[in-house]
Amino acid sequence: MKRSIATVSLSGTLPEKLDAIAAAGFDGVEIFENDLLYYDGSPREVRQICADLGLGISLFQPFRDFEGCRRDRLARNLDRAERKFDLMQELGTDLVLVCSNAAADSVGDRQILLDDLSLLAERAGARNLRIGYEALAWGRHVNTWQQVWDLVREIDHPSLGVLLDSFHTLSLKGDPSGIAQIPGDKIFFVQMADAPILAMDVLEWSRHFRCFPGQGEFDLPGFLAPIIQSGYTGPLSLEIFNDGFRAAPTRANAADGLRSLLYLEEKTRERLVQEAAPAASLEPLFAPPKASDYKGIEFLEFAVDDNQGAQLTHWLERLGFSKAGQHRSKNVSLLRQGDINLVLNAEPYSFGHNFFEAHGPSLCATAIRVQDSASALARAVAYKGQPYRGLVGPNELELAAVRAPDGSLIYLVDQDEAGNPLYESDFNLATAHTGQGGLKRIDHMAMALPADSLDSWVLFYKSLLDFEADDEVVLPDPYGLVKSRALRSRCSTIRLPLNISENKNTAISHALSSYRGSGVHHIAFECDDLFAEVSRAKAAGVPLLDIPLNYYDDLAARFDFDDEFLSELAYFNVLYDRDAQGGELFHVYTEPFAGRFFFELLQRKNGYAGYGAANVAVRLAAMAKSRTGAVRQAKL
Amino acid sequence: MKRSIATVSLSGTLPEKLDAIAAAGFDGVEIFENDLLYYDGSPREVRQICADLGLGISLFQPFRDFEGCRRDRLARNLDRAERKFDLMQELGTDLVLVCSNAAADSVGDRQILLDDLSLLAERAGARNLRIGYEALAWGRHVNTWQQVWDLVREIDHPSLGVLLDSFHTLSLKGDPSGIAQIPGDKIFFVQMADAPILAMDVLEWSRHFRCFPGQGEFDLPGFLAPIIQSGYTGPLSLEIFNDGFRAAPTRANAADGLRSLLYLEEKTRERLVQEAAPAASLEPLFAPPKASDYKGIEFLEFAVDDNQGAQLTHWLERLGFSKAGQHRSKNVSLLRQGDINLVLNAEPYSFGHNFFEAHGPSLCATAIRVQDSASALARAVAYKGQPYRGLVGPNELELAAVRAPDGSLIYLVDQDEAGNPLYESDFNLATAHTGQGGLKRIDHMAMALPADSLDSWVLFYKSLLDFEADDEVVLPDPYGLVKSRALRSRCSTIRLPLNISENKNTAISHALSSYRGSGVHHIAFECDDLFAEVSRAKAAGVPLLDIPLNYYDDLAARFDFDDEFLSELAYFNVLYDRDAQGGELFHVYTEPFAGRFFFELLQRKNGYAGYGAANVAVRLAAMAKSRTGAVRQAKL
Repeated sequence: MKRSIATVSLSGTLPEKLDAIAAAGFDGVEIFENDLLYYDGSPREVRQICADLGLGISLFQPFRDFEGCRRDRLARNLDRAERKFDLMQELGTDLVLVCSNAAADSVGDRQILLDDLSLLAERAGARNLRIGYEALAWGRHVNTWQQVWDLVREIDHPSLGVLLDSFHTLSLKGDPSGIAQIPGDKIFFVQMADAPILAMDVLEWSRHFRCFPGQGEFDLPGFLAPIIQSGYTGPLSLEIFNDGFRAAPTRANAADGLRSLLYLEEKTRERLVQEAAPAASLEPLFAPPKASDYKGIEFLEFAVDDNQGAQLTHWLERLGFSKAGQHRSKNVSLLRQGDINLVLNAEPYSFGHNFFEAHGPSLCATAIRVQDSASALARAVAYKGQPYRGLVGPNELELAAVRAPDGSLIYLVDQDEAGNPLYESDFNLATAHTGQGGLKRIDHMAMALPADSLDSWVLFYKSLLDFEADDEVVLPDPYGLVKSRALRSRCSTIRLPLNISENKNTAISHALSSYRGSGVHHIAFECDDLFAEVSRAKAAGVPLLDIPLNYYDDLAARFDFDDEFLSELAYFNVLYDRDAQGGELFHVYTEPFAGRFFFELLQRKNGYAGYGAANVAVRLAAMAKSRTGAVRQAKL
Repeated sequence: MKRSIATVSLSGTLPEKLDAIAAAGFDGVEIFENDLLYYDGSPREVRQICADLGLGISLFQPFRDFEGCRRDRLARNLDRAERKFDLMQELGTDLVLVCSNAAADSVGDRQILLDDLSLLAERAGARNLRIGYEALAWGRHVNTWQQVWDLVREIDHPSLGVLLDSFHTLSLKGDPSGIAQIPGDKIFFVQMADAPILAMDVLEWSRHFRCFPGQGEFDLPGFLAPIIQSGYTGPLSLEIFNDGFRAAPTRANAADGLRSLLYLEEKTRERLVQEAAPAASLEPLFAPPKASDYKGIEFLEFAVDDNQGAQLTHWLERLGFSKAGQHRSKNVSLLRQGDINLVLNAEPYSFGHNFFEAHGPSLCATAIRVQDSASALARAVAYKGQPYRGLVGPNELELAAVRAPDGSLIYLVDQDEAGNPLYESDFNLATAHTGQGGLKRIDHMAMALPADSLDSWVLFYKSLLDFEADDEVVLPDPYGLVKSRALRSRCSTIRLPLNISENKNTAISHALSSYRGSGVHHIAFECDDLFAEVSRAKAAGVPLLDIPLNYYDDLAARFDFDDEFLSELAYFNVLYDRDAQGGELFHVYTEPFAGRFFFELLQRKNGYAGYGAANVAVRLAAMAKSRTGAVRQAKL
């Protein structure tokens, strides 16, 4: 399909926007009137800029408050339309978006609406221009696509067609399925916008909270599928009013926009296949290689220098890890426990630049187990991911990899029933495992991200890796709010809670400021007997995050625990949560390593599926105290 | 009245909050349960901290989901209550907030509610504790104060009383007037919260958007007046859930909280006087000296160094100002035009520190005309404003002054029918006015503020100076959003639009980053004939902000102007707006002076009362272009 975006969706001046739209790979652009008004060049110059960039101008928008206007204003409104038609002809576009009248003094009499729209269609037709008529969700009398189609069908003028916008239908919980019955050539244009589900005034919701497809909660494939079935062959365009987008980096955001359309097309294709739609109708939709089934995290790789490497090794050994190998040719070591592989990389230029210099001790790569790494990489590249080829020494395996949004690597590692040959090929492995620890696997890995990058990360994982995203939760830190949204591979073998904070003194913001970018916030290891693991760790001297006794008093009020058990929880600083189905979580946190990221040990019982959100606030408060404890104690 | 605040209203750890609450001058504190849970000290220690700070613990809160709970949970819930009663006794408070049950599976049968609340009152009474029962706006069965009072009256137990929260009533558009009929001793506690009027889910609204009294749009005096009339003598407490407050500087925000209660008391007193309430009932309410009537801005004072002073003088002379005086003993000059006095102060330590060094060329003082400066100053001090006494030389008038939130000064200058003697006393005045300019008066002065300080400024001007605040408007800059809220003296002789932006590349944020704090953004001068003034200014070489021609094409589509008039508007870069009543605004902007603040010349016709909000977007776009024009032109 042709892919388009409205200029209002991006930050910057009109030339900056057009430049970014072309660079992202869009075919066309909707010129939003205000962007033109504020631009210090003529419409003809804009036309030339677009032509030079290879962008079509798919439409001009919006033309407001026309049909059913006060009768004494109709002539003036038609003059206004003619002036805008002049402008469209200078711009070189033949389509204008006319949105339904939202004025309080407008009238809804059907015959008047028919007359007004006929008149406008006549005027447009006389110049070979076309009107796309759209129902605003807050239109005074016309606010559904069904009403729009009723009027368009009745008027039956070649210059008047339906313009569809997913937001205006889905925000009112409208049913798009009947769109399939509209003749495709009567649909002149389609705008796609996603949004989080918010219980608020629909106009405010639309003006400030729209987002790219896949970033919100609307069923957009359910909206697009009947449009494809109608036979519509025009462009698919993004029209996103979003406060964050108004300030977001223009090129990066435009690239996200294009990726979101590709993702929407793939998901719509899947929907149409389920509904046994004719193969020919699927033709225009993007079809990347299918995503892999994932089997968990193969290894995590940390960038360290020698000193930090030794310290991190010491921490991990106290957590029950043991040194399992040394790289054959590089300053890289392997630590293992259960199904967990951690690689400590002290080579300065492993990733094309010195990751340690740039970020300090941090996660530089995540290797995930896939069924077919070539296909997984092809999918990532189809979604405009940046593939990575590392320096491979003799006898080393080359791993498929793609860059995450923060520049770290995601290795795509073929799953092997008998374990993974990559360690044998690259490492001199220790002959026997000596570790005593009972940690089994990586349960989840939480990231701290810059506040304005969450939507971009969500879209990255959803599209390139076909992950799912849980709903956002908002959690209180003593110094502000933290927002968390968890990404999960299907079957949940990989879980990545992403955390942001707009407040500068929260734990998340402190983590970020030390990374100068995004970074791992904590890594959670699962075990079968938390008390055994935590008592071993405590005995080995692992510094555990201290939880206030008042927390345990409250547990006593909330749950039927005997005092002895509560004392044990308190002694080991174990946090507890129980879900509505009786699933239970026991978990404990370490103090941060090098002031940056920390480890969590956890045990899930009876199918507990969450991350202990009920305990995040007490954990964040304990972390704040641990950061500033000495200062504060001295002050009191 | 006793004044209190809930710990949830502030940022930080529990000791930080208590410290700030005491420093602000509150009498008591509501301990929010989570703050206690996350605190690493016993309830007894918290009691001691409060005692040492001279703070009473006015209540413990909240106890949730009790009355009408599932019958199989009642015994467990009573146990839970007993545990919390233990905790209250350790804390040393006798009052607990019990909020109405919000659980979906709770029951609303009146007899069950009566039985459950009776049982709880019995248990509390046995320990000499008291229950304040509150209707949550989203309570499942009980969500109005009328229902609460009905149950409390029926049970008639000395340990059970009504707890009122303004948000829960006003968010549902409830009528508080009947509260006057509740016996005052049956009201156990009163919480006051303001909020902007938002069309959204009431729970989300409550959890994230409450603000201090006077910062929002609720009629809080209308809520408090009947409470005073009931004979209630307990504390007035703030319970503010606000995302911004969770990260705001703790001490400054607590001080704003106390100021907001004083302001609420003054406004409630005025309301009660209007309603002819008995004088004795007014006794407990704060009564500062009345605010002055204001007669406009007497002068503006800029901090400059010699070089900047000469440049600014040159700018102002081209705008029609003339040098009218030189200070008798200081490096300070006076420029005048019409009723406008501008003072350029190049003395390095005029304000106790070098304002120029700290801020660069900027507004350091605003002098406003009052009827009685001593009373105006007393009022500001009663509202905990910081008075300022400058260094006064021989024969100099000493002016009453108070510090604005950014450290600049607000002089309170007595209005004199025959002009102001301060210029004669301090300046060697020029004998004759030589200026040709037709600028008449300062129409408004717009400020750029850090994003999180707007509410604090609004409260400052409302309370100390009794200004009014217009509703907030949101305006698009090419690189983000700008929010603007105008403060006005009654009768509108002084107008101060305050602007903030959370996005770092907007015009407002650029202005701020150059000030390292807040600062003047533009100063608007009114005249009777804009075209005469602008043509004089243009001829004198004042650089005017260039407005794109596309703007004028759109004016042509919107209004019935002839081409000649449009050409004149465009030639002089004049912006135009018309309101619904036919009021008209003509205005023009200069380029910024020294990259910081700029001037506006305007003419109002037919009672136009706004600030040309319709034209702000094109102005901000033009400013962005002016900032970065050269770079961008080179790139294209």
